[in-house]
Amino acid sequence: MGETHIARRRRLAALVAERGAAALLVTRLVNVRYLTGLDSSRAALLVPADGPALLATDGRYAGMAAQVCPELPVIVDRQVAGVLVARAAEDGHGRVGFEAHDVTVEQHTALLDEIRLENRGVELTPLGHLAEELRMVKDEEEIALLREACAVTDRAFAAVLPEIRAGVTERAVAVALERAMVDLGAERPAFESIVASGPNGAVPHHHPGGRELQRGDLVTMDFGALYGGYHADMTRTVAIGEPAGWQRDLYDLVHRAQRAGLAAAVPGAETKAVDAAARDVIKDAGHGEAFSHGLGHGVGLEIHEAPLMGYDKTGKLTDRVPITAEPGVYLTGRGGVRIEDTFVVRADGPELLTTTTKDLLVL
Amino acid sequence: MGETHIARRRRLAALVAERGAAALLVTRLVNVRYLTGLDSSRAALLVPADGPALLATDGRYAGMAAQVCPELPVIVDRQVAGVLVARAAEDGHGRVGFEAHDVTVEQHTALLDEIRLENRGVELTPLGHLAEELRMVKDEEEIALLREACAVTDRAFAAVLPEIRAGVTERAVAVALERAMVDLGAERPAFESIVASGPNGAVPHHHPGGRELQRGDLVTMDFGALYGGYHADMTRTVAIGEPAGWQRDLYDLVHRAQRAGLAAAVPGAETKAVDAAARDVIKDAGHGEAFSHGLGHGVGLEIHEAPLMGYDKTGKLTDRVPITAEPGVYLTGRGGVRIEDTFVVRADGPELLTTTTKDLLVL
Repeated sequence: MGETHIARRRRLAALVAERGAAALLVTRLVNVRYLTGLDSSRAALLVPADGPALLATDGRYAGMAAQVCPELPVIVDRQVAGVLVARAAEDGHGRVGFEAHDVTVEQHTALLDEIRLENRGVELTPLGHLAEELRMVKDEEEIALLREACAVTDRAFAAVLPEIRAGVTERAVAVALERAMVDLGAERPAFESIVASGPNGAVPHHHPGGRELQRGDLVTMDFGALYGGYHADMTRTVAIGEPAGWQRDLYDLVHRAQRAGLAAAVPGAETKAVDAAARDVIKDAGHGEAFSHGLGHGVGLEIHEAPLMGYDKTGKLTDRVPITAEPGVYLTGRGGVRIEDTFVVRADGPELLTTTTKDLLVL
Repeated sequence: MGETHIARRRRLAALVAERGAAALLVTRLVNVRYLTGLDSSRAALLVPADGPALLATDGRYAGMAAQVCPELPVIVDRQVAGVLVARAAEDGHGRVGFEAHDVTVEQHTALLDEIRLENRGVELTPLGHLAEELRMVKDEEEIALLREACAVTDRAFAAVLPEIRAGVTERAVAVALERAMVDLGAERPAFESIVASGPNGAVPHHHPGGRELQRGDLVTMDFGALYGGYHADMTRTVAIGEPAGWQRDLYDLVHRAQRAGLAAAVPGAETKAVDAAARDVIKDAGHGEAFSHGLGHGVGLEIHEAPLMGYDKTGKLTDRVPITAEPGVYLTGRGGVRIEDTFVVRADGPELLTTTTKDLLVL
């Protein structure tokens, strides 16, 4: 991955130059990982507009850094941000960008103290979410990891399907899904699985509990595998026993909305237009109020990342942006349906990464 | 738990008054949970020095809030911090504390904009880590949850012990420990388990991989259960087959160091003195450099919380402070030993919560 990370840092350096800064101090660990390959709990990276980047991490990760990014000079120090700011001062950098969405007010105060100590005229300035902008569009290497994360997720669902029946608790289904994912090669679940049965299906983020599945339930399962650092995200709703008419209608409605969302997710589309394409289907059926969240979100090194898709979001989709489409309708006291896939926006149409059937499964 | 949370908020309000502020804006989610019982991914709490507290959360958690803290007024709004700052302005609060260790520079800028909009003379001021100070000393209710978390951890180790043998991979041992904890009642593992065998034992935070345990290995396992939101933390090192003389000596050394640390952890002790008590044993044996981390840390709603115990840390232990003692010696290329318990500092001597034997197990 060395070449990949060098290319990513080069793209970031160009953005830094474009914003008129001498360097960017990257402190968000997920961004450091993206730019170096180093997965750690303490590291920071200084990316100058011109010249080589510089990594700081503590003694626990020095050996790993030498393995995954041997091309990078490393300072071993626990004050990873402070030592890089001091180095930026030594190197005569003036305007140094920082990640204002990551650095706390307390850390910022400490960095300003560090600069005063050095007394060399470094100025810290917020530069926006530059690394996140880059991360939105994935390399094919990243997409391959996401594809595998989604394949593991599909296989886990298929493996657990025979266990989903009346009398089993939500919690047991969640544990079975998570175990199957690990057995099938996941590092771990990408997030806390949701299993919401019967009336609990009306709670979008229901925490799986001791309720036993019953005949007549719709059961919504939202889960995914983590693979190579990349997060899969899939939701399926199934019926336990023959569904009632309103359940089948609700399912068909959400399924239609999801198809509309997928169809609208083309390069160049406004994210709010993609959200609207799915939302309008649900609104037209009179359930607009019951679709209480955005249509979807980017996935990658984080389970929720740019772009976010909602009626109040701005931004455009481009080629190679992996996102989810997850419309849902939640009827308090009755239940709910949500259907979600992870897919990649492509010029020649969406590439579905989760491929489990979306026909209503009656178990 | 309603009464418990009311008492906690009352103690916090007293600290806020002591620091001369009108209110504290609590944004760290773990602190909001501690003060209200609400476990969410979006919430904030305004705790005035005088008068009732006010919770803000989004629509997903409004129902849960009504259940777990019915005594608290709730504002349902996604801008949880902004809406509480606006309310503080309306209520005529002047100096409002905030958690500078949690609020990012970007969020802080947005709050200042909110205040300018309201134009009512609220002044945001860092007040230190007030909630964390309170959280250091546990209620007996909290200690009971930690005790159960540790009991699950002990039982999981006992259940997996027969599976720890030559030919099994580190990863398989880690998965077995994590499954056993969930089977025995854990919500989930309290952190990513470490299983480090043979030479990998020289890496304190080794990520369990495909290496198969071999006769002649020392194997270090660092793991724990999450129960009721509380984190257990235990490490044991075992031998696969009869250990060599140096391995037994190293084990005995670390065991003696751990006993010295436990003995020194009395109410009133300086944390650095407790660290030194264990560290000196290892230094005297000539391995001072090879004990490359602090002796331990507080545990509770977080896996690492106050007090931190290291040679460079300040602070004093008091009654009812649960901490870990985890000395280790790491010999590059050869292997390592770490032994860790979770225990509670008590006036009448440490109460061990993890109770698995510390005799060297030869498997």
